[in-house]
Amino acid sequence: MSQKLHDILLAESENNKDLYLPHISIDSVVFGFDGENLHVLLTSLIGKSEWMLPGGYVFKEENINSSAHRILQERTGAENIFLSQFKTYGATQRSEDAFTELPEDLWHKQRYISIAYYALTRYDAVNPRTDKYSDSCAWQPVEQLPEIMMDHKGIIEDALMHLRRDLNYKPVGLNLLPQKFTMPELQRLYEIILDKSLNRGNFYRKMTRYNILEKLNETRRGGAHKAPDLYSFNLENYNVALENGLQESW
Amino acid sequence: MSQKLHDILLAESENNKDLYLPHISIDSVVFGFDGENLHVLLTSLIGKSEWMLPGGYVFKEENINSSAHRILQERTGAENIFLSQFKTYGATQRSEDAFTELPEDLWHKQRYISIAYYALTRYDAVNPRTDKYSDSCAWQPVEQLPEIMMDHKGIIEDALMHLRRDLNYKPVGLNLLPQKFTMPELQRLYEIILDKSLNRGNFYRKMTRYNILEKLNETRRGGAHKAPDLYSFNLENYNVALENGLQESW
Repeated sequence: MSQKLHDILLAESENNKDLYLPHISIDSVVFGFDGENLHVLLTSLIGKSEWMLPGGYVFKEENINSSAHRILQERTGAENIFLSQFKTYGATQRSEDAFTELPEDLWHKQRYISIAYYALTRYDAVNPRTDKYSDSCAWQPVEQLPEIMMDHKGIIEDALMHLRRDLNYKPVGLNLLPQKFTMPELQRLYEIILDKSLNRGNFYRKMTRYNILEKLNETRRGGAHKAPDLYSFNLENYNVALENGLQESW
Repeated sequence: MSQKLHDILLAESENNKDLYLPHISIDSVVFGFDGENLHVLLTSLIGKSEWMLPGGYVFKEENINSSAHRILQERTGAENIFLSQFKTYGATQRSEDAFTELPEDLWHKQRYISIAYYALTRYDAVNPRTDKYSDSCAWQPVEQLPEIMMDHKGIIEDALMHLRRDLNYKPVGLNLLPQKFTMPELQRLYEIILDKSLNRGNFYRKMTRYNILEKLNETRRGGAHKAPDLYSFNLENYNVALENGLQESW
Protein backbone atom coordinates (compact mmCIF):
# COMPACT_ATOMS: atom_id res chain seq x y z
CA MET A 1 0.00 0.00 0.00
CA SER A 2 1.18 3.50 -0.74
CA GLN A 3 2.24 5.57 2.27
CA LYS A 4 -0.24 8.25 1.20
CA LEU A 5 -3.26 5.93 1.30
CA HIS A 6 -2.01 4.42 4.58
CA ASP A 7 -1.88 7.84 6.21
CA ILE A 8 -5.29 8.92 4.91
CA LEU A 9 -7.01 5.75 6.14
CA LEU A 10 -5.53 6.16 9.62
CA ALA A 11 -6.37 9.85 9.73
CA GLU A 12 -10.00 9.34 8.70
CA SER A 13 -10.82 6.30 10.78
CA GLU A 14 -11.93 7.83 14.11
CA ASN A 15 -13.73 10.70 12.44
CA ASN A 16 -15.74 8.27 10.30
CA LYS A 17 -16.79 6.36 13.42
CA ASP A 18 -18.36 9.54 14.75
CA LEU A 19 -20.12 10.45 11.52
CA TYR A 20 -21.46 7.28 9.97
CA LEU A 21 -23.56 4.20 10.79
CA PRO A 22 -21.21 1.25 11.35
CA HIS A 23 -21.23 -1.82 9.06
CA ILE A 24 -23.23 -0.16 6.28
CA SER A 25 -21.99 1.10 2.93
CA ILE A 26 -23.48 2.22 -0.36
CA ASP A 27 -22.12 1.19 -3.75
CA SER A 28 -23.33 2.54 -7.07
CA VAL A 29 -23.06 1.05 -10.53
CA VAL A 30 -23.26 4.15 -12.71
CA PHE A 31 -24.09 3.40 -16.34
CA GLY A 32 -23.41 5.85 -19.16
CA PHE A 33 -24.15 5.34 -22.88
CA ASP A 34 -22.15 7.18 -25.55
CA GLY A 35 -24.35 6.20 -28.50
CA GLU A 36 -22.29 3.12 -29.23
CA ASN A 37 -21.15 1.48 -25.97
CA LEU A 38 -22.35 1.19 -22.39
CA HIS A 39 -19.84 2.31 -19.77
CA VAL A 40 -19.63 2.01 -16.01
CA LEU A 41 -17.96 4.54 -13.70
CA LEU A 42 -15.07 3.03 -11.75
CA THR A 43 -12.52 4.40 -9.35
CA SER A 44 -9.22 3.18 -7.95
CA LEU A 45 -7.60 3.66 -4.56
CA ILE A 46 -4.44 5.74 -4.39
CA GLY A 47 -1.53 3.68 -5.69
CA LYS A 48 -3.67 0.61 -6.53
CA SER A 49 -4.16 -0.72 -10.05
CA GLU A 50 -7.45 -2.52 -9.41
CA TRP A 51 -10.72 -0.71 -9.87
CA MET A 52 -13.81 -0.54 -7.69
CA LEU A 53 -17.30 0.94 -7.61
CA PRO A 54 -17.70 4.48 -6.28
CA GLY A 55 -19.27 4.22 -2.86
CA GLY A 56 -19.47 5.67 0.60
CA TYR A 57 -21.14 5.59 3.99
CA VAL A 58 -24.46 6.61 5.54
CA PHE A 59 -24.60 9.51 8.00
CA LYS A 60 -26.20 8.55 11.31
CA GLU A 61 -29.30 10.64 10.55
CA GLU A 62 -29.51 10.19 6.80
CA ASN A 63 -32.01 8.26 4.68
CA ILE A 64 -30.11 5.66 2.60
CA ASN A 65 -31.53 7.01 -0.67
CA SER A 66 -30.21 10.45 0.25
CA SER A 67 -26.80 8.91 0.92
CA ALA A 68 -26.78 7.30 -2.51
CA HIS A 69 -27.63 10.62 -4.18
CA ARG A 70 -25.08 12.55 -2.11
CA ILE A 71 -22.26 10.12 -2.85
CA LEU A 72 -23.08 10.10 -6.54
CA GLN A 73 -23.13 13.86 -6.72
CA GLU A 74 -19.73 14.02 -5.03
CA ARG A 75 -18.37 11.65 -7.67
CA THR A 76 -20.03 13.02 -10.79
CA GLY A 77 -20.89 16.66 -10.14
CA ALA A 78 -24.36 15.83 -11.48
CA GLU A 79 -27.59 16.26 -9.55
CA ASN A 80 -30.84 14.34 -9.94
CA ILE A 81 -29.25 11.29 -11.48
CA PHE A 82 -31.72 8.39 -11.84
CA LEU A 83 -30.99 5.81 -9.13
CA SER A 84 -32.57 2.43 -8.49
CA GLN A 85 -31.70 0.26 -5.52
CA PHE A 86 -31.38 -3.34 -6.68
CA LYS A 87 -29.69 -5.56 -4.05
CA THR A 88 -27.91 -5.60 -0.71
CA TYR A 89 -24.69 -7.57 -0.33
CA GLY A 90 -24.09 -9.07 3.09
CA ALA A 91 -21.82 -12.09 2.89
CA THR A 92 -19.20 -12.24 5.62
CA GLN A 93 -15.60 -11.55 4.60
CA ARG A 94 -16.60 -9.16 1.80
CA SER A 95 -14.42 -6.40 3.18
CA GLU A 96 -12.74 -7.54 6.38
CA ASP A 97 -9.58 -8.70 4.60
CA ALA A 98 -8.84 -5.33 3.08
CA PHE A 99 -5.85 -3.33 4.35
CA THR A 100 -4.30 -6.26 6.26
CA GLU A 101 -1.33 -4.15 7.34
CA LEU A 102 -3.53 -1.68 9.24
CA PRO A 103 -5.01 -2.01 12.76
CA GLU A 104 -8.03 -4.30 13.24
CA ASP A 105 -10.22 -1.49 14.55
CA LEU A 106 -9.71 0.64 11.44
CA TRP A 107 -13.07 2.00 10.22
CA HIS A 108 -12.42 0.73 6.69
CA LYS A 109 -11.69 -2.84 7.82
CA GLN A 110 -14.99 -3.65 9.48
CA ARG A 111 -17.64 -5.95 8.08
CA TYR A 112 -19.73 -3.98 5.55
CA ILE A 113 -23.20 -4.76 4.36
CA SER A 114 -23.44 -2.83 1.13
CA ILE A 115 -26.66 -1.48 -0.35
CA ALA A 116 -26.23 -1.35 -4.13
CA TYR A 117 -27.90 1.05 -6.56
CA TYR A 118 -27.61 1.35 -10.28
CA ALA A 119 -27.57 4.82 -11.77
CA LEU A 120 -28.36 5.92 -15.31
CA THR A 121 -26.88 9.05 -16.82
CA ARG A 122 -25.89 10.63 -20.07
CA TYR A 123 -22.28 9.85 -20.75
CA ASP A 124 -21.29 13.47 -21.28
CA ALA A 125 -23.31 14.85 -18.33
CA VAL A 126 -20.77 13.51 -15.87
CA ASN A 127 -17.40 14.82 -14.70
CA PRO A 128 -15.83 11.88 -12.88
CA ARG A 129 -14.08 13.02 -9.67
CA THR A 130 -11.79 11.27 -7.25
CA ASP A 131 -12.47 11.29 -3.52
CA LYS A 132 -9.92 11.44 -0.70
CA TYR A 133 -9.09 7.72 -1.02
CA SER A 134 -8.77 7.50 -4.81
CA ASP A 135 -6.48 8.83 -7.51
CA SER A 136 -8.59 7.99 -10.54
CA CYS A 137 -12.24 7.86 -11.49
CA ALA A 138 -13.19 7.08 -15.08
CA TRP A 139 -15.67 5.45 -17.47
CA GLN A 140 -14.84 1.87 -18.40
CA PRO A 141 -16.64 -0.07 -21.15
CA VAL A 142 -18.97 -2.72 -19.74
CA GLU A 143 -17.90 -5.14 -22.46
CA GLN A 144 -14.23 -4.86 -21.54
CA LEU A 145 -13.89 -4.29 -17.82
CA PRO A 146 -10.49 -3.94 -16.15
CA GLU A 147 -9.50 -5.90 -13.03
CA ILE A 148 -11.97 -5.17 -10.23
CA MET A 149 -11.66 -5.48 -6.42
CA MET A 150 -13.68 -7.50 -3.91
CA ASP A 151 -17.14 -8.64 -5.07
CA HIS A 152 -17.66 -5.57 -7.21
CA LYS A 153 -17.52 -7.40 -10.56
CA GLY A 154 -20.46 -9.55 -9.45
CA ILE A 155 -22.32 -6.43 -8.35
CA ILE A 156 -21.89 -4.94 -11.85
CA GLU A 157 -23.18 -8.18 -13.41
CA ASP A 158 -26.20 -8.15 -11.09
CA ALA A 159 -26.86 -4.51 -11.95
CA LEU A 160 -26.90 -5.36 -15.65
CA MET A 161 -29.36 -8.19 -15.03
CA HIS A 162 -31.66 -5.87 -13.09
CA LEU A 163 -31.34 -3.18 -15.78
CA ARG A 164 -32.38 -5.78 -18.37
CA ARG A 165 -35.43 -6.85 -16.38
CA ASP A 166 -36.32 -3.22 -15.62
CA LEU A 167 -36.46 -2.21 -19.30
CA ASN A 168 -40.26 -2.45 -19.22
CA TYR A 169 -40.62 -0.69 -15.87
CA LYS A 170 -38.00 2.04 -15.53
CA PRO A 171 -37.18 5.03 -17.77
CA VAL A 172 -33.98 3.44 -19.01
CA GLY A 173 -33.89 5.04 -22.46
CA LEU A 174 -34.87 8.43 -21.13
CA ASN A 175 -31.94 8.56 -18.73
CA LEU A 176 -29.24 7.04 -20.94
CA LEU A 177 -29.93 8.79 -24.25
CA PRO A 178 -29.53 12.46 -25.18
CA GLN A 179 -32.80 14.37 -25.39
CA LYS A 180 -32.88 13.87 -29.17
CA PHE A 181 -31.86 10.49 -30.53
CA THR A 182 -32.25 8.28 -33.57
CA MET A 183 -34.06 4.96 -33.71
CA PRO A 184 -30.77 3.11 -34.45
CA GLU A 185 -29.28 4.63 -31.26
CA LEU A 186 -32.27 3.49 -29.21
CA GLN A 187 -32.08 0.01 -30.73
CA ARG A 188 -28.33 -0.18 -30.10
CA LEU A 189 -28.94 0.68 -26.42
CA TYR A 190 -31.54 -2.09 -26.09
CA GLU A 191 -29.26 -4.57 -27.85
CA ILE A 192 -26.40 -3.87 -25.45
CA ILE A 193 -28.58 -4.16 -22.36
CA LEU A 194 -30.34 -7.30 -23.62
CA ASP A 195 -27.08 -8.70 -24.97
CA LYS A 196 -28.67 -9.80 -28.26
CA SER A 197 -29.42 -8.52 -31.74
CA LEU A 198 -32.91 -7.25 -32.44
CA ASN A 199 -34.78 -7.18 -35.73
CA ARG A 200 -35.07 -3.58 -36.90
CA GLY A 201 -38.68 -3.81 -38.07
CA ASN A 202 -39.91 -5.61 -34.93
CA PHE A 203 -38.08 -3.16 -32.69
CA TYR A 204 -39.61 -0.17 -34.51
CA ARG A 205 -43.08 -1.71 -34.26
CA LYS A 206 -42.75 -2.50 -30.54
CA MET A 207 -41.27 0.88 -29.60
CA THR A 208 -43.91 2.86 -31.49
CA ARG A 209 -46.98 0.98 -30.22
CA TYR A 210 -46.92 2.75 -26.82
CA ASN A 211 -46.89 6.31 -28.16
CA ILE A 212 -43.94 7.06 -25.91
CA LEU A 213 -41.82 8.41 -28.78
CA GLU A 214 -42.28 11.69 -30.59
CA LYS A 215 -40.84 12.00 -34.06
CA LEU A 216 -39.27 15.45 -34.41
CA ASN A 217 -39.20 17.58 -37.52
CA GLU A 218 -35.42 17.25 -37.53
CA THR A 219 -32.88 14.83 -38.84
CA ARG A 220 -29.36 14.03 -37.68
CA ARG A 221 -27.03 15.80 -40.11
CA GLY A 222 -23.65 14.68 -41.26
CA GLY A 223 -22.66 11.23 -42.47
CA ALA A 224 -22.81 9.75 -45.94
CA HIS A 225 -26.22 8.11 -45.67
CA LYS A 226 -29.70 9.53 -45.63
CA ALA A 227 -29.99 11.62 -42.45
CA PRO A 228 -31.90 9.57 -39.84
CA ASP A 229 -34.98 10.98 -38.12
CA LEU A 230 -34.66 12.30 -34.60
CA TYR A 231 -36.99 11.30 -31.77
CA SER A 232 -37.59 12.34 -28.20
CA PHE A 233 -39.63 10.75 -25.43
CA ASN A 234 -43.17 11.90 -24.66
CA LEU A 235 -42.75 12.08 -20.90
CA GLU A 236 -46.43 11.92 -20.06
CA ASN A 237 -47.11 8.79 -22.11
CA TYR A 238 -43.80 7.22 -21.04
CA ASN A 239 -44.66 7.57 -17.36
CA VAL A 240 -48.14 6.12 -17.86
CA ALA A 241 -46.77 3.18 -19.86
CA LEU A 242 -44.09 2.38 -17.27
CA GLU A 243 -46.57 2.44 -14.42
CA ASN A 244 -48.10 -0.81 -15.58
CA GLY A 245 -44.99 -2.02 -17.33
CA LEU A 246 -44.60 -2.13 -21.10
CA GLN A 247 -45.81 -5.77 -21.29
CA GLU A 248 -43.20 -6.40 -23.91
CA SER A 249 -40.95 -9.35 -24.46
CA TRP A 250 -37.92 -8.18 -26.36
CA MET B 1 -47.30 -1.67 26.73
CA SER B 2 -47.83 -4.89 28.63
CA GLN B 3 -45.56 -5.43 31.62
CA LYS B 4 -44.52 -8.77 30.14
CA LEU B 5 -43.23 -7.27 26.86
CA HIS B 6 -41.59 -4.41 28.81
CA ASP B 7 -39.64 -6.88 30.94
CA ILE B 8 -38.59 -9.06 28.01
CA LEU B 9 -37.30 -6.08 26.00
CA LEU B 10 -35.22 -4.85 28.92
CA ALA B 11 -33.90 -8.34 29.67
CA GLU B 12 -32.85 -9.02 26.06
CA SER B 13 -31.34 -5.65 25.22
CA GLU B 14 -27.73 -6.02 26.41
CA ASN B 15 -27.49 -9.61 25.25
CA ASN B 16 -28.61 -8.62 21.76
CA LYS B 17 -25.90 -5.94 21.63
CA ASP B 18 -23.31 -8.66 22.15
CA LEU B 19 -24.75 -11.04 19.59
CA TYR B 20 -25.93 -9.03 16.62
CA LEU B 21 -24.75 -6.37 14.16
CA PRO B 22 -26.19 -3.01 15.19
CA HIS B 23 -28.67 -1.08 13.01
CA ILE B 24 -29.48 -4.03 10.74
CA SER B 25 -32.62 -6.15 10.69
CA ILE B 26 -34.22 -8.69 8.39
CA ASP B 27 -37.92 -8.73 7.56
CA SER B 28 -39.65 -11.44 5.58
CA VAL B 29 -42.90 -11.31 3.65
CA VAL B 30 -43.93 -14.97 3.66
CA PHE B 31 -46.55 -15.81 1.04
CA GLY B 32 -48.72 -18.93 1.23
CA PHE B 33 -51.41 -20.01 -1.26
CA ASP B 34 -54.30 -22.25 -0.20
CA GLY B 35 -55.67 -22.91 -3.69
CA GLU B 36 -58.02 -19.95 -3.51
CA ASN B 37 -56.35 -17.02 -1.69
CA LEU B 38 -52.86 -15.68 -1.13
CA HIS B 39 -51.90 -15.21 2.51
CA VAL B 40 -49.04 -13.49 4.30
CA LEU B 41 -47.56 -14.59 7.62
CA LEU B 42 -47.89 -11.89 10.30
CA THR B 43 -47.07 -11.73 13.96
CA SER B 44 -48.01 -9.42 16.83
CA LEU B 45 -46.06 -8.26 19.85
CA ILE B 46 -47.23 -9.43 23.25
CA GLY B 47 -50.32 -7.45 24.25
CA LYS B 48 -50.44 -5.42 21.00
CA SER B 49 -53.29 -5.63 18.51
CA GLU B 50 -51.35 -4.42 15.46
CA TRP B 51 -49.54 -6.92 13.28
CA MET B 52 -46.04 -6.91 11.85
CA LEU B 53 -43.75 -8.94 9.60
CA PRO B 54 -41.73 -11.73 11.20
CA GLY B 55 -38.14 -10.57 11.39
CA GLY B 56 -34.94 -10.65 13.34
CA TYR B 57 -31.30 -9.64 13.50
CA VAL B 58 -28.00 -10.68 11.91
CA PHE B 59 -25.34 -12.42 14.01
CA LYS B 60 -21.98 -10.65 13.87
CA GLU B 61 -20.46 -13.48 11.80
CA GLU B 62 -23.46 -14.50 9.75
CA ASN B 63 -24.21 -14.06 6.04
CA ILE B 64 -27.44 -12.07 5.66
CA ASN B 65 -29.03 -14.80 3.52
CA SER B 66 -28.33 -17.30 6.30
CA SER B 67 -29.97 -14.95 8.78
CA ALA B 68 -33.09 -14.79 6.64
CA HIS B 69 -33.28 -18.58 6.42
CA ARG B 70 -32.63 -19.04 10.14
CA ILE B 71 -35.28 -16.51 11.17
CA LEU B 72 -37.81 -18.04 8.82
CA GLN B 73 -37.16 -21.53 10.10
CA GLU B 74 -37.63 -20.33 13.68
CA ARG B 75 -41.01 -18.87 12.70
CA THR B 76 -42.32 -21.61 10.44
CA GLY B 77 -40.57 -24.84 11.39
CA ALA B 78 -39.92 -25.31 7.67
CA GLU B 79 -36.50 -25.65 6.09
CA ASN B 80 -35.42 -24.75 2.58
CA ILE B 81 -38.16 -22.22 2.02
CA PHE B 82 -37.69 -20.25 -1.20
CA LEU B 83 -36.42 -16.75 -0.35
CA SER B 84 -35.74 -13.79 -2.59
CA GLN B 85 -34.26 -10.54 -1.33
CA PHE B 86 -36.12 -7.63 -2.95
CA LYS B 87 -35.38 -4.32 -1.21
CA THR B 88 -33.67 -2.65 1.74
CA TYR B 89 -35.54 -0.06 3.78
CA GLY B 90 -33.41 2.67 5.26
CA ALA B 91 -35.44 5.80 5.90
CA THR B 92 -34.71 7.51 9.21
CA GLN B 93 -37.39 7.26 11.91
CA ARG B 94 -38.59 3.85 10.71
CA SER B 95 -38.12 2.30 14.14
CA GLU B 96 -36.67 4.88 16.52
CA ASP B 97 -40.09 5.92 17.84
CA ALA B 98 -41.05 2.45 18.99
CA PHE B 99 -41.25 1.75 22.72
CA THR B 100 -41.15 5.42 23.75
CA GLU B 101 -41.49 4.50 27.45
CA LEU B 102 -38.23 2.52 27.45
CA PRO B 103 -34.63 3.82 27.74
CA GLU B 104 -33.06 5.46 24.69
CA ASP B 105 -30.22 2.94 24.57
CA LEU B 106 -32.58 -0.04 24.31
CA TRP B 107 -31.43 -2.43 21.56
CA HIS B 108 -34.91 -2.43 20.01
CA LYS B 109 -35.14 1.38 19.79
CA GLN B 110 -32.14 2.02 17.57
CA ARG B 111 -32.30 3.01 13.95
CA TYR B 112 -32.77 -0.12 11.81
CA ILE B 113 -31.99 -0.56 8.17
CA SER B 114 -34.07 -3.57 7.23
CA ILE B 115 -33.23 -5.98 4.45
CA ALA B 116 -36.49 -7.43 3.13
CA TYR B 117 -37.03 -10.84 1.55
CA TYR B 118 -40.13 -12.44 0.19
CA ALA B 119 -40.65 -16.14 0.85
CA LEU B 120 -42.84 -18.60 -1.01
CA THR B 121 -44.24 -21.68 0.66
CA ARG B 122 -47.12 -24.09 0.56
CA TYR B 123 -49.78 -22.88 2.90
CA ASP B 124 -50.03 -26.18 4.79
CA ALA B 125 -46.24 -26.76 5.01
CA VAL B 126 -45.93 -24.12 7.70
CA ASN B 127 -46.59 -24.17 11.44
CA PRO B 128 -46.57 -20.49 12.46
CA ARG B 129 -44.71 -19.98 15.75
CA THR B 130 -44.37 -17.02 18.06
CA ASP B 131 -40.97 -15.82 19.23
CA LYS B 132 -40.06 -14.36 22.63
CA TYR B 133 -41.54 -10.95 21.78
CA SER B 134 -44.84 -12.09 20.23
CA ASP B 135 -48.00 -13.82 21.35
CA SER B 136 -49.47 -14.61 17.95
CA CYS B 137 -48.25 -15.59 14.50
CA ALA B 138 -50.79 -16.43 11.81
CA TRP B 139 -51.67 -16.33 8.12
CA GLN B 140 -53.64 -13.28 7.02
CA PRO B 141 -55.27 -12.91 3.57
CA VAL B 142 -53.38 -10.45 1.35
CA GLU B 143 -56.67 -9.06 0.07
CA GLN B 144 -57.91 -8.22 3.57
CA LEU B 145 -54.95 -7.29 5.74
CA PRO B 146 -55.40 -6.29 9.40
CA GLU B 147 -53.83 -3.14 10.89
CA ILE B 148 -50.06 -3.29 10.44
CA MET B 149 -47.23 -1.53 12.33
CA MET B 150 -44.49 0.82 11.09
CA ASP B 151 -43.75 0.70 7.33
CA HIS B 152 -44.58 -2.98 7.07
CA LYS B 153 -47.72 -2.54 4.96
CA GLY B 154 -45.66 -0.78 2.30
CA ILE B 155 -43.11 -3.59 2.47
CA ILE B 156 -45.86 -6.14 1.76
CA GLU B 157 -47.07 -4.06 -1.21
CA ASP B 158 -43.53 -3.84 -2.57
CA ALA B 159 -43.11 -7.61 -2.12
CA LEU B 160 -46.25 -8.23 -4.18
CA MET B 161 -44.97 -5.94 -6.93
CA HIS B 162 -41.66 -7.79 -7.04
CA LEU B 163 -43.44 -11.15 -7.02
CA ARG B 164 -45.51 -9.97 -10.02
CA ARG B 165 -42.43 -8.91 -11.97
CA ASP B 166 -40.59 -12.09 -10.98
CA LEU B 167 -43.28 -14.42 -12.40
CA ASN B 168 -41.18 -14.95 -15.53
CA TYR B 169 -37.91 -15.36 -13.64
CA LYS B 170 -38.50 -17.18 -10.35
CA PRO B 171 -40.15 -20.55 -9.59
CA VAL B 172 -43.25 -18.89 -8.16
CA GLY B 173 -45.78 -21.59 -9.06
CA LEU B 174 -43.45 -24.38 -7.98
CA ASN B 175 -43.11 -23.00 -4.47
CA LEU B 176 -46.69 -21.88 -3.86
CA LEU B 177 -48.62 -24.84 -5.29
CA PRO B 178 -48.83 -28.41 -4.02
CA GLN B 179 -46.83 -30.92 -6.04
CA LYS B 180 -49.94 -31.87 -8.03
CA PHE B 181 -52.27 -29.09 -9.08
CA THR B 182 -54.96 -28.30 -11.61
CA MET B 183 -54.79 -25.73 -14.38
CA PRO B 184 -57.56 -23.64 -12.74
CA GLU B 185 -55.51 -23.54 -9.51
CA LEU B 186 -52.42 -22.36 -11.42
CA GLN B 187 -54.48 -19.74 -13.26
CA ARG B 188 -56.07 -18.54 -10.01
CA LEU B 189 -52.60 -18.08 -8.49
CA TYR B 190 -51.45 -16.01 -11.48
CA GLU B 191 -54.65 -13.93 -11.36
CA ILE B 192 -54.14 -13.09 -7.69
CA ILE B 193 -50.50 -12.15 -8.16
CA LEU B 194 -51.19 -10.13 -11.32
CA ASP B 195 -54.37 -8.68 -9.84
CA LYS B 196 -56.35 -9.23 -13.03
CA SER B 197 -58.50 -11.83 -14.73
CA LEU B 198 -56.87 -13.96 -17.41
CA ASN B 199 -58.47 -15.62 -20.40
CA ARG B 200 -58.53 -19.38 -19.83
CA GLY B 201 -57.54 -20.35 -23.36
CA ASN B 202 -54.68 -17.83 -23.58
CA PHE B 203 -53.39 -18.85 -20.18
CA TYR B 204 -53.40 -22.53 -21.14
CA ARG B 205 -51.60 -21.77 -24.40
CA LYS B 206 -48.95 -19.60 -22.72
CA MET B 207 -48.31 -22.02 -19.84
CA THR B 208 -47.97 -25.05 -22.10
CA ARG B 209 -45.63 -23.52 -24.68
CA TYR B 210 -42.58 -23.85 -22.45
CA ASN B 211 -42.91 -27.57 -21.70
CA ILE B 212 -42.58 -26.81 -18.01
CA LEU B 213 -45.80 -28.63 -17.09
CA GLU B 214 -46.36 -32.37 -17.08
CA LYS B 215 -49.89 -33.64 -17.37
CA LEU B 216 -50.33 -36.55 -14.98
CA ASN B 217 -52.46 -39.61 -15.55
CA GLU B 218 -54.62 -38.53 -12.63
CA THR B 219 -57.57 -36.28 -12.06
CA ARG B 220 -58.72 -34.36 -9.00
CA ARG B 221 -61.66 -36.37 -7.55
CA GLY B 222 -64.70 -35.04 -5.75
CA GLY B 223 -66.92 -32.17 -6.81
CA ALA B 224 -69.91 -32.17 -9.07
CA HIS B 225 -68.14 -31.31 -12.32
CA LYS B 226 -65.90 -33.30 -14.58
CA ALA B 227 -62.77 -34.13 -12.58
CA PRO B 228 -59.99 -31.70 -13.69
CA ASP B 229 -56.61 -32.99 -14.87
CA LEU B 230 -53.67 -32.81 -12.50
CA TYR B 231 -50.30 -31.36 -13.49
CA SER B 232 -46.86 -31.10 -11.95
CA PHE B 233 -43.81 -29.06 -12.93
CA ASN B 234 -41.03 -30.56 -15.01
CA LEU B 235 -38.16 -29.23 -12.90
CA GLU B 236 -35.49 -29.56 -15.54
CA ASN B 237 -37.42 -27.62 -18.19
CA TYR B 238 -38.69 -25.13 -15.61
CA ASN B 239 -35.17 -24.26 -14.50
CA VAL B 240 -33.94 -23.85 -18.06
CA ALA B 241 -36.94 -21.66 -18.96
CA LEU B 242 -36.46 -19.42 -15.92
CA GLU B 243 -32.79 -18.93 -16.59
CA ASN B 244 -33.55 -16.72 -19.59
CA GLY B 245 -36.95 -15.63 -18.33
CA LEU B 246 -40.21 -16.85 -19.79
CA GLN B 247 -40.44 -13.87 -22.19
CA GLU B 248 -44.14 -13.74 -21.54
CA SER B 249 -46.42 -10.80 -21.06
CA TRP B 250 -49.38 -11.90 -19.03
